[in-house]
Amino acid sequence: MSIIELIERKRDGGRLTSDEIQWIITEYTADCIPDYQMSSLLMAIFKEGLNPDELTAWTDAMLHSGEVLDFSHIEAPKIDKHSTGGVGDKVSIPLAPMVAACGVAIPMMSGRGLGHTGGTLDKLETIPGFRTALDPPEFRSILEQTGLVLAGQSETLVPADRRIYSLRDATGTVPSIPLIASSIMSKKLAEGLDALVLDVKSGRGAFMKDLDSARALAETMVGIGRAHGTAVTGLITDMNQPLGREVGNANEIAESVEVLKGGGPQDLLEVTFRLGEEMLLMAGIAADHQEARLRLEETITSGSAFEKLVEVAVAQGGDPAVLEDTSLLAHAPEEAVVPAPGSGYLSRADARMIGVAATRLGAGRERKDDEIDPGVGITVMVNIADPVEQGEPLARVAWSDRGQLESALELLERAFAVSEESVEPLQLIQGEVR
Amino acid sequence: MSIIELIERKRDGGRLTSDEIQWIITEYTADCIPDYQMSSLLMAIFKEGLNPDELTAWTDAMLHSGEVLDFSHIEAPKIDKHSTGGVGDKVSIPLAPMVAACGVAIPMMSGRGLGHTGGTLDKLETIPGFRTALDPPEFRSILEQTGLVLAGQSETLVPADRRIYSLRDATGTVPSIPLIASSIMSKKLAEGLDALVLDVKSGRGAFMKDLDSARALAETMVGIGRAHGTAVTGLITDMNQPLGREVGNANEIAESVEVLKGGGPQDLLEVTFRLGEEMLLMAGIAADHQEARLRLEETITSGSAFEKLVEVAVAQGGDPAVLEDTSLLAHAPEEAVVPAPGSGYLSRADARMIGVAATRLGAGRERKDDEIDPGVGITVMVNIADPVEQGEPLARVAWSDRGQLESALELLERAFAVSEESVEPLQLIQGEVR
Repeated sequence: MSIIELIERKRDGGRLTSDEIQWIITEYTADCIPDYQMSSLLMAIFKEGLNPDELTAWTDAMLHSGEVLDFSHIEAPKIDKHSTGGVGDKVSIPLAPMVAACGVAIPMMSGRGLGHTGGTLDKLETIPGFRTALDPPEFRSILEQTGLVLAGQSETLVPADRRIYSLRDATGTVPSIPLIASSIMSKKLAEGLDALVLDVKSGRGAFMKDLDSARALAETMVGIGRAHGTAVTGLITDMNQPLGREVGNANEIAESVEVLKGGGPQDLLEVTFRLGEEMLLMAGIAADHQEARLRLEETITSGSAFEKLVEVAVAQGGDPAVLEDTSLLAHAPEEAVVPAPGSGYLSRADARMIGVAATRLGAGRERKDDEIDPGVGITVMVNIADPVEQGEPLARVAWSDRGQLESALELLERAFAVSEESVEPLQLIQGEVR
Repeated sequence: MSIIELIERKRDGGRLTSDEIQWIITEYTADCIPDYQMSSLLMAIFKEGLNPDELTAWTDAMLHSGEVLDFSHIEAPKIDKHSTGGVGDKVSIPLAPMVAACGVAIPMMSGRGLGHTGGTLDKLETIPGFRTALDPPEFRSILEQTGLVLAGQSETLVPADRRIYSLRDATGTVPSIPLIASSIMSKKLAEGLDALVLDVKSGRGAFMKDLDSARALAETMVGIGRAHGTAVTGLITDMNQPLGREVGNANEIAESVEVLKGGGPQDLLEVTFRLGEEMLLMAGIAADHQEARLRLEETITSGSAFEKLVEVAVAQGGDPAVLEDTSLLAHAPEEAVVPAPGSGYLSRADARMIGVAATRLGAGRERKDDEIDPGVGITVMVNIADPVEQGEPLARVAWSDRGQLESALELLERAFAVSEESVEPLQLIQGEVR
């Protein structure tokens, strides 16, 4: 096969066969196709897309570029949740123990924050001692022991994706629905799941800025799952304003614990419960949404979900004291307040700008090797459509380094807007794809 | 500047500023932008094009990536001709001495054959001793001395093009009109010309397969010339069948000498004279086509054009004996014949297939470092529309290595077709752009 001919065919809108795609991924992973040819092909794919057959083949070839986990010896249904990423999106942290407490096995592999979005691993690591880098035997053993494991992507899984992703990142070929979908799905399918629930974020703070593109991505991923024989449900949820109140790392753990203790803000609860219901339905543990909801609520009232989080934290080396008493979590020493510029109704709480502000404060990374400051963060006090009074705090900023404070506050001032006229609340669950 | 942002902008159909383009070419040539980013950008340009301002900036940046020749101390008008390449296209070899004999200075830089097309340098080098690799002082001195120099592209000119061209060759981004046009024009403008005549080939044996794309390429190149302040005229000429009778190397030198001695096939004469007329008009040496034609004919009848070829050959180390007696040129020992499959009118003499057959025989290169066999070649005995009798030789094949003979003959059999009904002759000059 000639890679140049395959590039030319895709460039001109033609289709690649499964064998050709398999060959491309294998040769690229084996360093036999150079980066400059792969990046040219990726740009051609960006412009011309991949049809469903090509996409299935591409995902499958990536999936089999490395180890594929097999948990078939675990009797419980194996189900994971994946979010396309947002601001304040700590859903995995309360959700996974709730669903695991219902008897679902959750081999969850998460990522780190980059740019304006946070990452589950960074949040978990604010629990002192908590290790997210697990080798495959340890990952397996913790899953067997607790029915839940919360770790980073193993180096042995989907090596093709790591290489292709970093090439895409450097060559302007990231925001391509087939390339995003195959990247996510190859990693999730390598986890050896029975089913998967996707939380596709849509809006200002999401990768997909509008409902149409979020729906297209969800449909593409559900289609890949179907072709692979894995049940996948996708919810499309709002990411125009941050989810929940807390944006940061340790503060997001505290808010997650609040949910497991029976509290927590309404929007965070709604997304968490809704995703959990989908997982229980797919697991066959509940017959309908109402039953699923009751099962999940029981994990809160009984304390079993919180206990599950403590159990997995301990299994992964974490100190449970900070979960029992979240005031022991890291907390930046200084506080600033963003006051409402007028009276009326909150019309904007721009998730992206708030996420960028949190990153400036040290909660996120602008570059891959930046260090996280676990205790800084932003607490958003109001939701869009809430009435506000001039001077009322819209957000509280926990900061520790004055260097970037001014630039973060300046962003936060622009992130919020108040309207004299009343404002419609945002619709949190925007759609579902199955 | 961020190369990723520039790739993204071009990918999404946006425009690059002149400064941005200058930066890209400079950084790439200096190894500060890696190949994988450049190839992604090139694919984006392939798909989205370059507008006239971008194209001018791109060409100008390439042009100034290396030495730019300055022959302003030479009083004669400096004019070159460039062909986009074809089969049997030896026009430069008779044309340059004819026009030089009229008083035009021709600093001609040519290329080598690759794929199915021949290259002027390979043909010239069948003159024993003829050196086409000249350093800039020697190039200049031969031009000053004889008013004509026939050499390869200097390494010091347009280094950006050499790098970008080989990257395009490996990444499926060759057939892009703005990239082709800027590659050609940057090299030609670096020759320090007053004017340039382009022979844009159109048809089966050409890079541009149809008149529309040939016209688009010609218009793009003329536009670049105009923006640069250099007069450029483009002729679009047929390349469905080979030009002239001879396809090869030494045999094309013999046919060129035939033209300079007052003979030669009609189609070769028509293209040569027409291009020569354009050059004399642009030089201000003739007032109209008729006068220009007379001046060119005088160079044949007086022998001055042939003498000019001998003069430049000697200046470049060549043995003039093979020009005085072309039977001394290399000639392969064996001959095969391609007979007409029926009686009627020649309806096909596919330039591309004939070019590929010649390459198989050893007249061209499939890879850049293949060796040329100077004496092999194909003599095409008939033109499209000519009456033919069954069994009559359509082509004679001079060969020396039996290895590829069968595959070449098989191609040649398919290259020709005979129709019972009469056939329209091809129109040789298909258009002009100025």
